[in-house]
Amino acid sequence: MLRQHEIQVRVRYDDADPMGLLHHARFFVYFEMGRTEMLRASGGCYRQMEEEGILIVVAKAECRYRKPARYDDVLTIRTIVERVTAAKIEHRYEVFRDGERLADGRTTLAVVDRDGRLCRVPEWMHTSLGVS
Amino acid sequence: MLRQHEIQVRVRYDDADPMGLLHHARFFVYFEMGRTEMLRASGGCYRQMEEEGILIVVAKAECRYRKPARYDDVLTIRTIVERVTAAKIEHRYEVFRDGERLADGRTTLAVVDRDGRLCRVPEWMHTSLGVS
Amino acid sequence: MLRQHEIQVRVRYDDADPMGLLHHARFFVYFEMGRTEMLRASGGCYRQMEEEGILIVVAKAECRYRKPARYDDVLTIRTIVERVTAAKIEHRYEVFRDGERLADGRTTLAVVDRDGRLCRVPEWMHTSLGVS
Amino acid sequence: MLRQHEIQVRVRYDDADPMGLLHHARFFVYFEMGRTEMLRASGGCYRQMEEEGILIVVAKAECRYRKPARYDDVLTIRTIVERVTAAKIEHRYEVFRDGERLADGRTTLAVVDRDGRLCRVPEWMHTSLGVS
Repeated sequence: MLRQHEIQVRVRYDDADPMGLLHHARFFVYFEMGRTEMLRASGGCYRQMEEEGILIVVAKAECRYRKPARYDDVLTIRTIVERVTAAKIEHRYEVFRDGERLADGRTTLAVVDRDGRLCRVPEWMHTSLGVS
Repeated sequence: MLRQHEIQVRVRYDDADPMGLLHHARFFVYFEMGRTEMLRASGGCYRQMEEEGILIVVAKAECRYRKPARYDDVLTIRTIVERVTAAKIEHRYEVFRDGERLADGRTTLAVVDRDGRLCRVPEWMHTSLGVS
Repeated sequence: MLRQHEIQVRVRYDDADPMGLLHHARFFVYFEMGRTEMLRASGGCYRQMEEEGILIVVAKAECRYRKPARYDDVLTIRTIVERVTAAKIEHRYEVFRDGERLADGRTTLAVVDRDGRLCRVPEWMHTSLGVS
Repeated sequence: MLRQHEIQVRVRYDDADPMGLLHHARFFVYFEMGRTEMLRASGGCYRQMEEEGILIVVAKAECRYRKPARYDDVLTIRTIVERVTAAKIEHRYEVFRDGERLADGRTTLAVVDRDGRLCRVPEWMHTSLGVS
């Protein structure tokens, strides 16, 4: 039962922009990696869910950038489950380099079927994501 | 004096994800293209600014996704200047496909020098971005 | 009946690397855009092919980089059909900026079904790609 | 003195295409990660080289794709130094999933200064890359 999880990511050369900084859009990719690994650590697997026709879509995403991350930095992405309801899953994210906070993010996810119709968040996700 | 600008973008294959949809992080890239072309239409050029040491960083970014965009769709990105102050520039974005609204975004930009120190937003940007 | 086609692409900020140059891997993305638009100009549509279960996979790709392309450059991508056989499609690519040749590429494509099994190149592709 | 090095990479969601496969252009990004980590394992650091004005550019790149890699696969990227001369560095790459070979790549790198002028490959790279 996880409510919080951390991964380390090294900033790839092609994720950095002409300023030498992690491009602002790629923070959302790193958040996605954080969610994926948190789910895996909880015993789930997003690829398998997708193969079974349970798709996760992002309904809302935001990020506040405090300090830049640079190419080749090793970042810690902390993923926190904020709330799981029948309709959506809310995560928060904190990005650190050597203990210094660089950015904060937030996403709201929804579950859809292959035709894009909204579904209830599966019961096991409530449990595995730490919310009974 | 532009306060609003529109571009058309066709969703690239490598911007689409395994669901065949424009990856949620890439909307922010399309917003950036919108800003860049709006600045160009106003007589500015972001690459030239960068060469002169005036760097734009994103301080905050958010997007609300209403309907998915798919690979090969032609999207209209409408960029709107909301506010320009001495310290920051706020834009809004609207994404359409065939007149249907797919997403809304918002960014807050700041200006920094090569050492990453915050600078005042240059006077000409107030003017060219349509806010006297 | 097209054997050659040209598109213009402006180098996106997030396609450029910390040197301010178009990242070498993204040339292959621009080649893909060239192929897609060539097919469209011939009356085909890759997205529709994919929906019908005719998938194109890249079997081989190469690029020789002569001069760098920079962020915000407008590039011309020339796509040339070299050879279409029952088993594969070979394209060449030339990248120009203001008439100056920056790079040359080459790809070999194969056609597979949804299970990844190799298929014959459809007859209409021989015709529409200009090889009877 | 390394002539060969291996890294593990998990295929990111945004590196996969609408077929659910690692996009062919991203193999070159994974090769770049392989080179970067090989250099680090040899005691070098590409970011530091870049800060000192020694830039590496790709002069030629190619890849032969044998079998597809899928989203979420864990791949092994084996990087092999083929040849280091005064003018260039040649690497080969092998991509495996569970011991099965998926792809083979090859790159030729050159060294340039900040003005893009070709430089001799630094002496220490001959040594650290295992070629006396």
